[in-house]
Amino acid sequence: MLAEIITIGDELLIGQVVDTNSAFMAKQLNKIGVSVFQITSIQDDKDHILQALHDAESRVDIVILTGGLGPTKDDITKKTIAQFFDDTLERDPEVLKNIENLWKNHVKGKLLQVNKDQALVPTKAKVLMNKLGTAPGMWFEKGDKVFVSLPGVPYEMKALMEHQVIPKVKAKYNCPYILHKTLLVYGLGESALAEKIEAWEDALPKHIKLAYLPSLGKMRLRLSTKGFDVKKVQLEVQEQIDSLLPLIKDEFAGFEEEEGSVEIVIAKQLVKLGKTLAIAESCTGGAVAERFTAHSGASNFFNGGVVTYATASKTDVLAVPKDIIDTYSVVSSQVAEAMASNARHLFKSDYALATTGNAGPTKGDSEAEIGTVFIAIATKDAVYSEQFNFGNHRIKVINKAVNKALEMLLKEIFKN
Amino acid sequence: MLAEIITIGDELLIGQVVDTNSAFMAKQLNKIGVSVFQITSIQDDKDHILQALHDAESRVDIVILTGGLGPTKDDITKKTIAQFFDDTLERDPEVLKNIENLWKNHVKGKLLQVNKDQALVPTKAKVLMNKLGTAPGMWFEKGDKVFVSLPGVPYEMKALMEHQVIPKVKAKYNCPYILHKTLLVYGLGESALAEKIEAWEDALPKHIKLAYLPSLGKMRLRLSTKGFDVKKVQLEVQEQIDSLLPLIKDEFAGFEEEEGSVEIVIAKQLVKLGKTLAIAESCTGGAVAERFTAHSGASNFFNGGVVTYATASKTDVLAVPKDIIDTYSVVSSQVAEAMASNARHLFKSDYALATTGNAGPTKGDSEAEIGTVFIAIATKDAVYSEQFNFGNHRIKVINKAVNKALEMLLKEIFKN
Repeated sequence: MLAEIITIGDELLIGQVVDTNSAFMAKQLNKIGVSVFQITSIQDDKDHILQALHDAESRVDIVILTGGLGPTKDDITKKTIAQFFDDTLERDPEVLKNIENLWKNHVKGKLLQVNKDQALVPTKAKVLMNKLGTAPGMWFEKGDKVFVSLPGVPYEMKALMEHQVIPKVKAKYNCPYILHKTLLVYGLGESALAEKIEAWEDALPKHIKLAYLPSLGKMRLRLSTKGFDVKKVQLEVQEQIDSLLPLIKDEFAGFEEEEGSVEIVIAKQLVKLGKTLAIAESCTGGAVAERFTAHSGASNFFNGGVVTYATASKTDVLAVPKDIIDTYSVVSSQVAEAMASNARHLFKSDYALATTGNAGPTKGDSEAEIGTVFIAIATKDAVYSEQFNFGNHRIKVINKAVNKALEMLLKEIFKN
Repeated sequence: MLAEIITIGDELLIGQVVDTNSAFMAKQLNKIGVSVFQITSIQDDKDHILQALHDAESRVDIVILTGGLGPTKDDITKKTIAQFFDDTLERDPEVLKNIENLWKNHVKGKLLQVNKDQALVPTKAKVLMNKLGTAPGMWFEKGDKVFVSLPGVPYEMKALMEHQVIPKVKAKYNCPYILHKTLLVYGLGESALAEKIEAWEDALPKHIKLAYLPSLGKMRLRLSTKGFDVKKVQLEVQEQIDSLLPLIKDEFAGFEEEEGSVEIVIAKQLVKLGKTLAIAESCTGGAVAERFTAHSGASNFFNGGVVTYATASKTDVLAVPKDIIDTYSVVSSQVAEAMASNARHLFKSDYALATTGNAGPTKGDSEAEIGTVFIAIATKDAVYSEQFNFGNHRIKVINKAVNKALEMLLKEIFKN
């Protein structure tokens, strides 16, 4: 079963907004056995939308559109879909009631005609009620093909996907089981990893696809396949992994979970151990803490963190001795270790992680070369640090430092 | 002048990776007068790549591809492009030298045949030397159309775009000037804003496009147009803005800068005032600090921040009196204000911002309803807070809280 995602909005094509909706939708569709053939981002333009609908219809079974359903004049998706289906708009009383309720309970302003007009729906559409917003989702069938139109507001789209689109697609089509299994691999470059597992890769059955996903400071290796016999698919992939793992036993750091991140592996292990974590950040500026707190349940292990960005705050807040800073500079293993150690005590935690470095583009309160980062780990028994140089591109330095810090922590908590 | 961006990679179509490259490229192209007609994400599949190249060629002048240029077997873009141009691959000695240098200076492992093979380039390509990685960029001309292939690694792609692709496109084509001007508007919903400025919008010349971009807790209003007379284009848009501003004088918060964020407006104002900032975060978990530290120059005003995630750390680190927490609960205006006030003193800052709330999905150390967030601001003269309910979706609650906190800070620092 193949799908195409069409995202509509000039803001995507001028680069004002990054399209995060597509990845979410693709993941949801994969889970129920629908492969996404293509993602197409187009303008808020009638002819462009019509053309994209025609093209997608020729390629796939399921077409999902997002965007362009708002109440203002630049929102033209609904009218254009009606034209595509040679249809007219009619007021839907249930949708109108939903809009009136939203207004009464949340917006509390005057209900305008443009808001009421959001209850106008093509007669051939089945309404997918959007309880979080005024624009209804719409489901169309044409022969054995399905067209779905959803609002572009991410949390509205997500709720409609999860509670309405996915169950309806599952009910309508007999889809295979799609399995992706991603291994996190640290300490090997893409080509070195490929060489190491070459014989294994060459023997991989053709219907299991292998992908290398290098990114700053880590590698991901993904196996993908599909089939109608769930058990058989799982067993087959498991057998391949069983023969792969001995080849990379020193570099394998775990499986990427559904949510796609090493911090979840760390979180689960800390909760399992009943241990807590504190984070002291300088050059990473809160980005490590944010990786943990973006997920629910962080309060089960994350006591807190401190961003001591200014040099003075390292002494004021973390009590890093001023003479250590004066002697070794603020970007040094001594300062990183003092930060980790003091954060551990301040937040009464079992583990603490600290970063200090110079992300550039200009040198700060230290003479350290741009890209230099020290990362320290403090445990109840020891404090240690490592020095890195992550190059001279600010965002790259920060991201590499975050990933490397997570890697060091991962290794530490899996030691025992 | 029209362009299409084609991003290649199964990881995009299964939702494992969010495509951030396209937005960057689109922004860069817009700056030199090239409009992006469409963005197409396709699979690592020969037939799909060939089809996408043919389709794009029929639609636009400039086709830019990213991805699929790595050294491993799943990378097939280069071979497929050679087939599209009916071309063969030849070793490029300059590219090989670059690869050998990268190996000597950074990778330091064994240089494998697959790495050397990255120096194989179609004979019809002009090489765009990639100093940050082993995969060269490639520039092809076919009639008056241009095809560019770039690696998908974001910082490699960015450097190649900025230093090679953009200058070459500028030199080859006579492009118009594209102007986007985005106003940040707070406190009005999309339809209420539209009603308020309806007469102005109706009188807008057809060639100036207006877009409403609602997002959690803020509205952006974008005017877009283009033309060959830069001064005339600028003047015309400025005249429209001059007649728009009096209509929204209470809600207008400033222009969105190139980088696209309110935190840059705040940063500039703080630097201008010579004032400093500290941040104490609970439910936002470091996300507010991270918004500031993602940009260079943050050390000019940002003293630091603390993430007091666990209740105990609010007393341990920020010295929030335990009886205040016991009396009012950890999610309360009293705690938010104590956090802001104490963070201001701890970090010796002029301003401090604090958040405490319950982002869900389950209740934490407080009985507060999920979605409840208190945001406090401390200045040298006052401490105050506001209470919000941001609904029951975790990421939405966090994002709304971050945006609302930035909005409150923005208002505070522009008071005088």
